Parts: sequence; C-alpha cells; structure tokens
Amino acid sequence: MDDPNDPQPGMPTVGLVGLGAMGIEVASNLLKKGFPVVGYDVRGAAYARFEAEGGHRANSPAEVGRQASVVIVFTVNAAQAESVLAGSDGILAAMGGSGVVALCCTALPEDVKRLGAMAAEQGVSLLDSPVSGGTAGAAAGTLTIMAAGPKDAYENTQPVFEAFGANLYHLGEEWGLGSTMKMVNQLLVGVHIAAACEAVAFGARAGIDPALLFEIVGKSAGSSWAFKDRVPRILAADYAPPRSAVNIFVKDLGIVLDTARGMTFPLPLAGSAYQQFVAASAAGWGNEDDSSVVRLYQRIADIPLPKKD
Amino acid sequence: MDDPNDPQPGMPTVGLVGLGAMGIEVASNLLKKGFPVVGYDVRGAAYARFEAEGGHRANSPAEVGRQASVVIVFTVNAAQAESVLAGSDGILAAMGGSGVVALCCTALPEDVKRLGAMAAEQGVSLLDSPVSGGTAGAAAGTLTIMAAGPKDAYENTQPVFEAFGANLYHLGEEWGLGSTMKMVNQLLVGVHIAAACEAVAFGARAGIDPALLFEIVGKSAGSSWAFKDRVPRILAADYAPPRSAVNIFVKDLGIVLDTARGMTFPLPLAGSAYQQFVAASAAGWGNEDDSSVVRLYQRIADIPLPKKD
Repeated sequence: MDDPNDPQPGMPTVGLVGLGAMGIEVASNLLKKGFPVVGYDVRGAAYARFEAEGGHRANSPAEVGRQASVVIVFTVNAAQAESVLAGSDGILAAMGGSGVVALCCTALPEDVKRLGAMAAEQGVSLLDSPVSGGTAGAAAGTLTIMAAGPKDAYENTQPVFEAFGANLYHLGEEWGLGSTMKMVNQLLVGVHIAAACEAVAFGARAGIDPALLFEIVGKSAGSSWAFKDRVPRILAADYAPPRSAVNIFVKDLGIVLDTARGMTFPLPLAGSAYQQFVAASAAGWGNEDDSSVVRLYQRIADIPLPKKD
Repeated sequence: MDDPNDPQPGMPTVGLVGLGAMGIEVASNLLKKGFPVVGYDVRGAAYARFEAEGGHRANSPAEVGRQASVVIVFTVNAAQAESVLAGSDGILAAMGGSGVVALCCTALPEDVKRLGAMAAEQGVSLLDSPVSGGTAGAAAGTLTIMAAGPKDAYENTQPVFEAFGANLYHLGEEWGLGSTMKMVNQLLVGVHIAAACEAVAFGARAGIDPALLFEIVGKSAGSSWAFKDRVPRILAADYAPPRSAVNIFVKDLGIVLDTARGMTFPLPLAGSAYQQFVAASAAGWGNEDDSSVVRLYQRIADIPLPKKD
C-alpha cells in the first residue's frame, strides 16, 4: 500500500514560506493530502519537523518561487512578506511570470494592495487570504480563510486551501478585503479576550470561584469563542510559553486602530481593549500569553486567582 | 388520556410573580410539567395567555404567598421585587413563616442581601437565583440558573428550577453570589453586543458585505453568543419591538459599574460598552432593540447597513 504521505502523481508543488507555529501545521496538512511541498524559513531550526514529514527544504525564497506555482506565505507580518517576495532574488521574480501567491498573514489593507500590485507587475496573482483558527485550527486543517483577489486565481487555489481550511470565502476581487475581514475578526477576538480577563478578575474579586465562573459563563449568554479558549489558561496560570502572545494583539489591534483612524471611524471598544494589551506589555508580559491581561488585576488588587509559582 | 397540562396529584403549587416576556414562558413550562401555578402581575393584560394555559390568577401578591410554598419572582428589578415581597399585604407575610422565594431578576447584590434578611425575619428562605438565556431560553426551558442562599432551600427547589432551567448551579449560601455571577455574565453580554455592533459597522464602512461578515465571524475566533444572537437583527434592521431593549443594558451595566465602584475595582471595557448603550438611549432608542448601538454609527457616518423604512 502507498504511504499516504507520498506525493500523489499530478499534484502541483506548493511553496510554503514561514514555517512557524501555524505554517508548519499547514505544511503538514498539505503533505498529508499528497501535495509536494517546498518550504523556506529564515530559522534553520524550523526545518526539522518539516523535513521529517517529507517536506523539501529550499535555500532561498527564490528557490521556492522557481519550484512552485502556488506559494503560501505564512510570515508574521507584511514587512516579512515583502522581504521574501520582492527584489531580484525574491519569490515573485523567480516565478517566471505566472502563478499565485496566497498571503495568509494579518496585514494592513494598504500594504496588501501594494504587494498585490507588485505581484501583478511580475505576472503573479496575489490572494489577500488571512486565516482564523489559530495553531489548533491549522493543525486540524479547519482554518477559516478570508480571501480577496482575482477570482480565477482563487478558484485555482481552492484545492490547496481545502488542504488546511474548512471554511473558504472569496470576499471580492479587491485586495485588502480579506485583510479588512481579518481585522474585523481580530477586533472581536481582542475585545473578547480583554473582556474575559476583566470578567474573571471582577468575579474573583467579588467572591465567585473562577472555575465555577468559567463553567457557568460557558453555558450562558456571556460566552464567546475567546472566553472558552483563554480562560482555561488563567485557571492553570499557564502564561508561558504563550499560545498567542500579548504583543500579537498590541500589533493586531494597533493595525485595526490605525486603519480606522485612516477611515476617520471611531472604535471605542477596540481602543479600550488595545490599552489593556499595551498595559500587559508594559508590565513585562509582551511575550507571554495574551490571557496575561488578567494579571494586571492581580498586580493591582491581589485578586484570588491561580498564580505562577 | 389525561391532559398533560392538568396539575399532577401531589405536585406543590408554585407561585409566579411577574408575567412579563420571561415570566410567562417560565409559567408555561411549569404548567406543562404539571405544577399548579398561581400567578400575579400588575398588568391585567398579562393574564390572557397564562389563564388560557391553565394558570390560576391571584388578585394580590399576598394571595400568591398564601397558596404557594415556592414563589418565583420574575419582576424587572429589585425595587419591584421589594414592592411585592414586603409589607403586611406582601408575599412574605402571607407565607405563614415557611417556604421559599426564588428571586430571578437582575439586582444589586446589596439589595438581594437586604431582601434575603427581610425574608428570613418572616421565616422564608430567599434564593438569589438570577437566570441567563433570555426569552428564548425561558420558552425552551433551557435557562441557566445561578443560585445562592440556604442549601436546603436550593435542594428543595431543584424540581421547580428543572421545569424551566437546563443548567442549575448553587454558588454558595451567601446572598449576592448569584446576583454577582449574573453581573459577570451581563458584563460580558453587554461588551459583546457593543463589540458586535462596532465590528459590523467598521466592516460595512470598509466595504465588507454585512451578511458575509456575519457568516465568516460565526465560523471564526471572533464569534460569541451575543454576536450570533444580535447581528441577524442588524441584517434585518429589526429594532422594534425590541427582543431586549437598550435601556436593559443601561440598567444592567449600570449595576455592574456601581458594584465595581463600591468594590473600588476598574472595569474599562464594561465602562466603554456602557457609554455606547447610554448613547443609543440618548439617540432615542432606549426602548428599541439593544442592537441599536450599531445605528449610532449609521447616524454618525451613514454606513451601508440595512435601514428602517
């Protein structure tokens, strides 16, 4: 019997740039579905699992561009994406005037528009395709993918997206719509995390057992995806290493607020949540879990929550 | 065959005071489970459905207290509850020195403590037992009930609670713990509704189709119970009559913030959300649906959302 992880005949080689926490899971799912995958990451340590699962290591972004007609970019931000896409030894120049680059990072719509135009100049179709679902969703292959860009490029890339996403959406041809949709989602996640921390801290201060509070809210109208995902970390005082760091939301809500300012649009709740993540970063927890927002209340008022040793 | 709505032999008569949107559904579930129910409401119009379903109309709160050993109070707030409980013609004096009063409204913990002591003086056990799940949960009999008060009173009342609640919790003997837990839940619901309105308005202003935004967030990390419940009302511009009025959250978040101030505890997100409900009330929508917070953005910036004619 064939090893299901062997590349299937006729399946196109997929490029994957950025083998971090999410990228490595996406690569793993692509390999499981039989796609040959060529990967690149600036950190050499990122290749160990990738190569063990059958991925092919590239020595440069250009090498990815030469070998793949579809390149998935899972860098942390648009600046990192630009550094691998642009220039004479970048991905775009190496793709030979055709193919698709799917940009999966959270970025400013204006940056994505610029990168889309840059790709088009090289004959490459860019998809503005951020995702939601985190590392767990990436591992399970159940990410939500919010794509914008040329419709034919989206349709041709669907089989690749289906290898790691369960909910695929095409928001329109205009670059930036995917990133805007991701921002709307991050606005909600950020507010919900800050609200979860505020609610748990308030309840604990008022004498409610935090574990019981968690169970009751989960069965009540106050529930949210973020509450159910983050509060168990508070109950376990499990802040480091982070599942998702405080500074990610300093960045993401910063992008949301910068964009809204550019549109002259008020976002009072996002602004309030942003300040909580900035405060948690100021307290020294920028690289610890984003549920560390609750520790602000512990530090201020010594509320009865589980503590780190 | 017996009519299942007929009172079953041996089932105790339950009193129900406050036959509003939720109270009438709770009465209906009690009657369906075979409890004889004696009800009272200040508004005569409230009795039509109650009596049609087999409920017995009382002419005063005292009449309820005389006929029932368990009285469920579904008034809008603690002041209304006090007006039916206290005094020589109130429920407590009429109960003859025994029985249980379950207070299901959202109230300040300090008010509940006072009412609990007042009941105890008359030999009646008060349960501080607010609920979550709204009219829909009341109709389905799936409310979450967050009770505090004497444990034996809670245990004796469980069969009655099970007629309209699916998730029952006893938070402790101390009156106020149930109300505090409800406040924690309302803090989250209020913040989530204001955030949902902010996110939909921001997305619409940035060119995202609101119906698509609703679908994508529902499958993403930004989802919440409140988002899924309220945003369909925005998509239908269905603000009146309200499912839950703006002024309910002006009241409930006001209670949360008053309590936190009494504890000297900061709640930045709840404060920000509160101001949005106050603004919606200032705009004239206090008695319309709480999703009207999104109309603030329409009024300010004419965003492309469905409008009322």
